Amino acid sequence: MPPAPKSGDALFASVDRVNAELFTLTYGAIVRQLLTDLEEVEEVNKQLDQMGYNIGTRLVDEFLAKSNVSRCVDFKETADVIAKLGFKMFLGVTATVTNWDAEGTSCSLVLEDNPLVDFVELPDTCQGLQYCNLLSGVIRGALEMVSMKTEVTWVRDMLRGDDAYEMRVKLIKQIPEEYPYKDDD
Amino acid sequence: MPPAPKSGDALFASVDRVNAELFTLTYGAIVRQLLTDLEEVEEVNKQLDQMGYNIGTRLVDEFLAKSNVSRCVDFKETADVIAKLGFKMFLGVTATVTNWDAEGTSCSLVLEDNPLVDFVELPDTCQGLQYCNLLSGVIRGALEMVSMKTEVTWVRDMLRGDDAYEMRVKLIKQIPEEYPYKDDD
Repeated sequence: MPPAPKSGDALFASVDRVNAELFTLTYGAIVRQLLTDLEEVEEVNKQLDQMGYNIGTRLVDEFLAKSNVSRCVDFKETADVIAKLGFKMFLGVTATVTNWDAEGTSCSLVLEDNPLVDFVELPDTCQGLQYCNLLSGVIRGALEMVSMKTEVTWVRDMLRGDDAYEMRVKLIKQIPEEYPYKDDD
Repeated sequence: MPPAPKSGDALFASVDRVNAELFTLTYGAIVRQLLTDLEEVEEVNKQLDQMGYNIGTRLVDEFLAKSNVSRCVDFKETADVIAKLGFKMFLGVTATVTNWDAEGTSCSLVLEDNPLVDFVELPDTCQGLQYCNLLSGVIRGALEMVSMKTEVTWVRDMLRGDDAYEMRVKLIKQIPEEYPYKDDD
């Protein structure tokens, strides 16, 4: 019998960690650099999402290796695993899964605590900026490696005056059997 | 009497943390982005150093607030504090201070473990890249906020085939009395 999945706390305790403020400021430096280099806020949003996607395709390996989580029964279980184990393992926080649609293919992940945005204020000139797009990109990239093609978009953002961070995760298509590890790693 | 400085371990345990692999991959994404946008490796080195400098000027506040470290007696004590407490608090590792010059104004910090470079390999096309320049920039920025103007350069780099990560910290000038906190924070 395979070992039972670890708890989020045990998982977070088992990984190497660095100071959250260092991460937050480093992420802020990326966003600032992209704003300077790309000029268009919409391009910055795309680039952050793409960076996140690339990171997600890598992080999923560490997640599967350390969490003892194997195949999820359905998308609902997948969402719970991301919210309770994935967020905890990488950011040290958990998310709440809510607002399921009738088909069970689309839900929201709500974050009360978001280490990406500590000390961040958006100037008026970048109101269209999706500051946390790295995070939604990570989810999209990680899910694609375990055969789920998704769309992930921010619907509430405290940096834009909302009362929480809420991302909408919509399952577009479940790709049959694609083994998450690559041979060339 | 002021409280005694915390140990590096106690300090690291007292701060919010995120997964080191997430940080490493996020940092890798910045470097890749800069290489794409700036083209010249020398420009990338400068930009990473400048980002680090900006981050260092912020992190020093968290360090002073949490570590109970107050004024260091001299540059030697400063170097020890960075190596044993600063690195531990932010990266979870410590450094060794070595190779002091006769005047006591220049020394090396040697890292055996460097979370910035896990999984990193440099392609032949960027052999001039100082991949860890963010880190040397952080030290330079943090020291400038506590009145020490320094030059910080990498003299050994495992990504370039050396047997350790060694940065040289040279005190250029000690600026008298500049209070590290800004009023507008």
